[in-house]
Amino acid sequence: MRLDSIRSPSHFLRQRAGPISCESVLKDYEGWWEREGRAISATVDRAGTPWVRMFDAAGRRVDEILYPADYRRMLLEGYRAGVIWRAFKENSLLPSLSLLYVTSFYDCGVTCPYGVSLSTAVPLSKCGAPAVRERFLPKLLREDEEVWQGATWMTEIKGGSDLGAGVETTAVPDGGAWRLTGDKYFSSNAGAELAVVAARPKGAPPGVRGLALFLVPRRRENGELNYTIRRLKDKIATRSVPTGEVELRASEGYLLGGPEEGIYLILEVLNISRVANSFGSVALAQRAIADAAQYAETRVAFGRPVIEHPMLQRQFEERIENLRAAFALAWEAGFLLNEVWRERRPYSDRYHLFRLVAHLAKYWTAEFAVQTAKWCMEVHGGVGVLEEFGAERLLREAMILAIWEGTAHRQLLDALEVIERKQAHRLLLRHLESGEPIPELRELAAAIDAHLKLPPEQREREWEPLGARLASSVAGALSLREQASSKSTR
Amino acid sequence: MRLDSIRSPSHFLRQRAGPISCESVLKDYEGWWEREGRAISATVDRAGTPWVRMFDAAGRRVDEILYPADYRRMLLEGYRAGVIWRAFKENSLLPSLSLLYVTSFYDCGVTCPYGVSLSTAVPLSKCGAPAVRERFLPKLLREDEEVWQGATWMTEIKGGSDLGAGVETTAVPDGGAWRLTGDKYFSSNAGAELAVVAARPKGAPPGVRGLALFLVPRRRENGELNYTIRRLKDKIATRSVPTGEVELRASEGYLLGGPEEGIYLILEVLNISRVANSFGSVALAQRAIADAAQYAETRVAFGRPVIEHPMLQRQFEERIENLRAAFALAWEAGFLLNEVWRERRPYSDRYHLFRLVAHLAKYWTAEFAVQTAKWCMEVHGGVGVLEEFGAERLLREAMILAIWEGTAHRQLLDALEVIERKQAHRLLLRHLESGEPIPELRELAAAIDAHLKLPPEQREREWEPLGARLASSVAGALSLREQASSKSTR
Amino acid sequence: MRLDSIRSPSHFLRQRAGPISCESVLKDYEGWWEREGRAISATVDRAGTPWVRMFDAAGRRVDEILYPADYRRMLLEGYRAGVIWRAFKENSLLPSLSLLYVTSFYDCGVTCPYGVSLSTAVPLSKCGAPAVRERFLPKLLREDEEVWQGATWMTEIKGGSDLGAGVETTAVPDGGAWRLTGDKYFSSNAGAELAVVAARPKGAPPGVRGLALFLVPRRRENGELNYTIRRLKDKIATRSVPTGEVELRASEGYLLGGPEEGIYLILEVLNISRVANSFGSVALAQRAIADAAQYAETRVAFGRPVIEHPMLQRQFEERIENLRAAFALAWEAGFLLNEVWRERRPYSDRYHLFRLVAHLAKYWTAEFAVQTAKWCMEVHGGVGVLEEFGAERLLREAMILAIWEGTAHRQLLDALEVIERKQAHRLLLRHLESGEPIPELRELAAAIDAHLKLPPEQREREWEPLGARLASSVAGALSLREQASSKSTR
Amino acid sequence: MRLDSIRSPSHFLRQRAGPISCESVLKDYEGWWEREGRAISATVDRAGTPWVRMFDAAGRRVDEILYPADYRRMLLEGYRAGVIWRAFKENSLLPSLSLLYVTSFYDCGVTCPYGVSLSTAVPLSKCGAPAVRERFLPKLLREDEEVWQGATWMTEIKGGSDLGAGVETTAVPDGGAWRLTGDKYFSSNAGAELAVVAARPKGAPPGVRGLALFLVPRRRENGELNYTIRRLKDKIATRSVPTGEVELRASEGYLLGGPEEGIYLILEVLNISRVANSFGSVALAQRAIADAAQYAETRVAFGRPVIEHPMLQRQFEERIENLRAAFALAWEAGFLLNEVWRERRPYSDRYHLFRLVAHLAKYWTAEFAVQTAKWCMEVHGGVGVLEEFGAERLLREAMILAIWEGTAHRQLLDALEVIERKQAHRLLLRHLESGEPIPELRELAAAIDAHLKLPPEQREREWEPLGARLASSVAGALSLREQASSKSTR
Repeated sequence: MRLDSIRSPSHFLRQRAGPISCESVLKDYEGWWEREGRAISATVDRAGTPWVRMFDAAGRRVDEILYPADYRRMLLEGYRAGVIWRAFKENSLLPSLSLLYVTSFYDCGVTCPYGVSLSTAVPLSKCGAPAVRERFLPKLLREDEEVWQGATWMTEIKGGSDLGAGVETTAVPDGGAWRLTGDKYFSSNAGAELAVVAARPKGAPPGVRGLALFLVPRRRENGELNYTIRRLKDKIATRSVPTGEVELRASEGYLLGGPEEGIYLILEVLNISRVANSFGSVALAQRAIADAAQYAETRVAFGRPVIEHPMLQRQFEERIENLRAAFALAWEAGFLLNEVWRERRPYSDRYHLFRLVAHLAKYWTAEFAVQTAKWCMEVHGGVGVLEEFGAERLLREAMILAIWEGTAHRQLLDALEVIERKQAHRLLLRHLESGEPIPELRELAAAIDAHLKLPPEQREREWEPLGARLASSVAGALSLREQASSKSTR
Repeated sequence: MRLDSIRSPSHFLRQRAGPISCESVLKDYEGWWEREGRAISATVDRAGTPWVRMFDAAGRRVDEILYPADYRRMLLEGYRAGVIWRAFKENSLLPSLSLLYVTSFYDCGVTCPYGVSLSTAVPLSKCGAPAVRERFLPKLLREDEEVWQGATWMTEIKGGSDLGAGVETTAVPDGGAWRLTGDKYFSSNAGAELAVVAARPKGAPPGVRGLALFLVPRRRENGELNYTIRRLKDKIATRSVPTGEVELRASEGYLLGGPEEGIYLILEVLNISRVANSFGSVALAQRAIADAAQYAETRVAFGRPVIEHPMLQRQFEERIENLRAAFALAWEAGFLLNEVWRERRPYSDRYHLFRLVAHLAKYWTAEFAVQTAKWCMEVHGGVGVLEEFGAERLLREAMILAIWEGTAHRQLLDALEVIERKQAHRLLLRHLESGEPIPELRELAAAIDAHLKLPPEQREREWEPLGARLASSVAGALSLREQASSKSTR
Repeated sequence: MRLDSIRSPSHFLRQRAGPISCESVLKDYEGWWEREGRAISATVDRAGTPWVRMFDAAGRRVDEILYPADYRRMLLEGYRAGVIWRAFKENSLLPSLSLLYVTSFYDCGVTCPYGVSLSTAVPLSKCGAPAVRERFLPKLLREDEEVWQGATWMTEIKGGSDLGAGVETTAVPDGGAWRLTGDKYFSSNAGAELAVVAARPKGAPPGVRGLALFLVPRRRENGELNYTIRRLKDKIATRSVPTGEVELRASEGYLLGGPEEGIYLILEVLNISRVANSFGSVALAQRAIADAAQYAETRVAFGRPVIEHPMLQRQFEERIENLRAAFALAWEAGFLLNEVWRERRPYSDRYHLFRLVAHLAKYWTAEFAVQTAKWCMEVHGGVGVLEEFGAERLLREAMILAIWEGTAHRQLLDALEVIERKQAHRLLLRHLESGEPIPELRELAAAIDAHLKLPPEQREREWEPLGARLASSVAGALSLREQASSKSTR
Repeated sequence: MRLDSIRSPSHFLRQRAGPISCESVLKDYEGWWEREGRAISATVDRAGTPWVRMFDAAGRRVDEILYPADYRRMLLEGYRAGVIWRAFKENSLLPSLSLLYVTSFYDCGVTCPYGVSLSTAVPLSKCGAPAVRERFLPKLLREDEEVWQGATWMTEIKGGSDLGAGVETTAVPDGGAWRLTGDKYFSSNAGAELAVVAARPKGAPPGVRGLALFLVPRRRENGELNYTIRRLKDKIATRSVPTGEVELRASEGYLLGGPEEGIYLILEVLNISRVANSFGSVALAQRAIADAAQYAETRVAFGRPVIEHPMLQRQFEERIENLRAAFALAWEAGFLLNEVWRERRPYSDRYHLFRLVAHLAKYWTAEFAVQTAKWCMEVHGGVGVLEEFGAERLLREAMILAIWEGTAHRQLLDALEVIERKQAHRLLLRHLESGEPIPELRELAAAIDAHLKLPPEQREREWEPLGARLASSVAGALSLREQASSKSTR
């Protein structure tokens, strides 16, 4: 069993994805995590939820997020390495996604601020009015410690899956800007200097069609706080990102895109987050395998290291094979995103293809991350359930990856929708075959065609096994293709 | 969907297992948990690992386990209800196991002290010298708050799966008693008044054959502490049971059974714990389904409670069906245990059949508990990863159920061993068919026969899928049988 | 040294205060604390700040205060014993204050909800409109677990000493009731069913004269929450009372007394709290001496228990003597309060005398409590700074007693004010002498007369040593009187 | 009021102590604390007691102390600046003590490892056998991150004041070295690479005369752990230093000095710690005044910042005056220590003078630190009791300064002893007068002479007020002298 490449995220990445532009940056970045980041990340997790200082001693509302001392150093490391600015300087998301991959191997929580900052910068750069873009975008793209962070706040108390019914935040025009009022219930990266926020302009129709996307800075033009943080949430993991409840009270906001574009921009934002989540999930699974291997090499039973026990050996081999497939799926989602991220409506078929792959990737990689983290704990045996040794942390982190940005349930239904509306499974088939037919996928596409003829309730009810098979088959096919291509090129 | 019976563990138990002797006791006991126990259990989990007061202010070593105030009340409730004494008074383990089931629905951690107390009382009653039995057994069987607790301490720092190599605790004879010296690394219910402890008598052969089982009380005959607690472990869950590292230093011990009986008694002890664990796992899964249902009934999306969404509805139905199968498997393990728990060597075929079923049950039910707890979190969406709402606790608890008393890996290999040595799969086939052949099981038995012809390394390496299929098929067959019988009798 | 009476608060109370009406109630109440309350109190302190559940899983705002399971049992014990209802049923505050004394020996934090509930019931009974009184007062006076709790919320973000400038909460009339809007920054007993709240009616003059006192229930007439809790505060102690930030948003309120009576009623409310605080401080000091004695009796150095070391022995004797004086001062404040608590303006001289004594008592007893708790830690030596043994808790609690309801600084200045305006030192002299002149006090009164002739800034600047001497001398004189009377009667 | 110098420890130090050799080092060091150290210190306090990893995942005993990530950086900052090595390179303790002063302004806990490292290096350099000194001393004096830490472990479970009875650790010779066995109950800086340890050589007489001082490294010559850490203690403060229970089990040790020198060396070690503690106490008091001022400048009441309120203004002035006196006393202790630290028996009168001043300084400065920290909390009002704002931390830290290295009680009695045996009060009188008689001190010396004629029990019993007066008068006289000298030189 060749485990070496498993121990290094940048190594694995290079091996699977082929040559990438910022290879030495990734290596340096990984080196920093090994030297310093690992310990900081452990401190942050152990310290639990960060806390928020609402008032200073003089009684002024300040809403500062307080962290263990080292935290800011950890956070800045990725911004400096280019997790945001490279996307714009190099005009490609792949370096960013590669940096997210390495980040997630060490701390999935930090991936979130990076991901949402990217999801803020992208629509701002595409749809912000020129004055707004010039004012804010350079802050997000700074390469030093003055860099601003972004955030994406959609969900309210009624839940995030049905945004049309759930968003009750309203926006009223005020001069060239808008005033937003409402409460956001799951606000990742609370405290960010800039957030994209879903709200309903006064007079807009109900449902998702009436939503618009706004840019909301932390401070008003006059320097006052522009939103307050009601509280941070005690999450079981990803403690490196503060998730809070944010109160908007006549907060200054700037419309992104046209008012009727709102829901499309919201979905574009979520798509970026989902791809980032997929990279995070695969990296976490790689980490879990690496940690399991390290433990299994030292623990001896029945006269040999347990990693040499036949049943466990087979499990390692299967995990690694599945890791490759999961990686191939996530990478494909990133690759396609990189082709379409600058598109605006009407979208190309490539965009619909991307959407399907993104849903499958979010779903499948998160599931794989959870199962692999669980297995890693089991490999550790009793030691696996002790807070002391860290094996249990991966499962906590993985559960969050599986839930935020939409659970399996949601990804599957959204995948079904893009299949129904855009025949995206057919697009996918063509994309994968590239000339040569793949019988397994053909058969699957036919099964999906048949499934689409079922009455709607039944179609939804019975979709899960078929959707799972689709994700798994696509991942497998991509992995095969990648192995073929890597054999041919090396 | 009929969810009513899912909400009540005693109701579900009666429905699945048929009439049980202590029905009203179970109901009262469940009532207490609903009124008071739930809140206490939440306090204990939230308070984290209990702490140990090593010294009193005057500097005397005391090793008291300290808990939130209400804890002792919660613990006593089950002892009073009869989780130990009923087994001996009613000469049946089924009331005890039923009480464990209800307990685990509310707090899996408390199930552990009950389970290990039972695992202490049983070998003491069977193999203790008369004077030892008379001195200690009545303490364990008290029905009031003076009741003693038991504990089973086998594992040392080198791990628990390979006891032959891992147990370094030694015992030397001292008058009629023994003196034990060594360190136990995972000692559940540390602080118990009485423990059964694996140790190697001076001069005994190496390996598992040289181990013996001893009874070790908390206090010496002269009243001094007989063991010390080096520290408690920070486990991620089951905080209602203190798990610690125990130091034996010339600790008074009493041999149970003959010296050559040691490893057999140790395995008997573990078998009881595994059955208790299986009951706990199924109860936890039931709880997870009940909690998921409660949430899904109140959360609305797209105009209706999410429990009415077709995909989720199907998931509930499948979970409940699998719950029934898992219950049938655990119950069968308990039923068989109840037939053989008084056996001594040489064991009957019934005993070997039991062993196989116990391994399959431990393995399969724990896996089901973990997956169901994970799914329950996903049903809760974002709320599922907040410490505030408790959904995440079930997954933490389930992970411990999956790991302690032996991981999946271990159960599968032990099942394979009893199949290899005793042809236990054939015993199981006969047991299940009771006249009428079940083709699926026949086919499976043949596959196992073929598997047994593989060379040893390969046999072990490729056993997992076959073992999983065996567990699943047996659970399914038992569930069918039970449904048939319940249809015929009601 | 006679330490026996120090170990029991009810015993000490009876010995110092003479026969009290509810002696057996006090004994039973103390018995409960010894049996159960001590452990619960330790759990609550160890668990840290209680937490608030803002939303239920379905997303409804609920603002429930969550505690360790046993907490409610502890809290109810005092309500049932009569800490509120006895004041009205027996038409005397002395039983209530005696119960507060015993409570504070065991848990100073619980004294707060009792004290503020009393401070709510008293103005409601005196000045509530009949319909309001009939609607709410019986809830506060219930003798069972349905009892409502009160609260007194004055302080806002700008601080509590200068209420005239600090209260920015406004009230506007709405039908027969009022609507209050504002934020209360230190709200003890947040979550109470009923609070008295300082606010400024629309149009009222600035400064303290424009304040009015309102009754604000937790729920509106239509059942909705009438105020929300922004967050609870992490206090270093008194964790048995939740202190939070309360948001009033058009909250229903009921005016107590006439609008011009506001500031007087507010001060009456604070006076009750200050007397309660004085009883709490003395009881805490008694507890600290009792704990120090218990430790010093067991710890041996240089061949004898340290309590027999001459220097320590002398410290114990002095502490106990000072405890008696502090008790006498607190008791006098309570005794006078009991004479004037039903007064309304214009106040009698007796009332002004009471005010002076109350300020001196709050100041002096809290200082004594802090110094005694500090000393108790020192008696414990190294053990005193470990969280494990509880000695450090008393100092944390005492520091809160010294600060809330106004620091030493504030008490001294308020005492000076009542002396300046009402010649209250002369009233006090007459009150204490009762015929026979006390030279020390005469001299002191003359010094105060001289002090009053200083220019205002200097008068304030140099008042502290004189004020301290006054408090100390009065306490000493009262203690002497009490010892004389107890000698004569026993 | 001139508060500027109060805000900077190095500034205050220079102003009070006059020119010091390492002025720019102190300034840089202070700068680091302002930029980075403050935040790290807050993290460490908030994180609570550090934890100890007893075993690694492979089951090897490792006893690593685990801290928030930044901790080690904070700790190294002082070692690098020269808190240990400068004492030997510059042949003066004053730079070390000055660095300790600045350290303590920011984090009293870190002062402890520095102080005990110094207390380890000094006896090693004076009395270590050449081979031992050469092997270990250079490690303690390194100027880089490889520096070793020292520790001083005397106290056992029976307490630290009566070492003659309390030390039960034994030492037996083993080749050129010794083997120590016993349990140390309050072991500051547990985990240190090198400790000085009190133990009784086999066959030595009982009582303090039979004690000897040993050097005990963390690792044996063969690389194995030489002591284990049973657990760390949950202290209320000084969380930057791990205090634990240390188990010596045939641990390698090296005798320092001759066997009959033991108790003298132990006292020399403690004397260094007491002087360090005195510097720490004064620095903490300075910090408390600085924090109180900062708060009182921003908090407004009755129309002006509360720092301008006359009573508070007077309190600030008095605190600052007392701070100067406390500083003068601590500095004098340091100055004298610097004269005598290389002395060996028989000691000079200068040494006895030093001992008296050291006891008075430890006692008086700690008391002042506690009272000032308490007052600082009161100045903060309600904000002072919230964990959020840090005011409460100073009191926790101060209480530890008051207790460890001997409580007030112990310092007073030890001062009395050196007065009784060596007429040290007369030495002190001569030292202070330097030509010109100080009537207050003369009178005090006479009172002490009279006191010495009392019978022993009474002498001890009534010593406290006289001892307090002595400390206060000496501090006052030193402060006057210093002011005179600073006036004359500037």
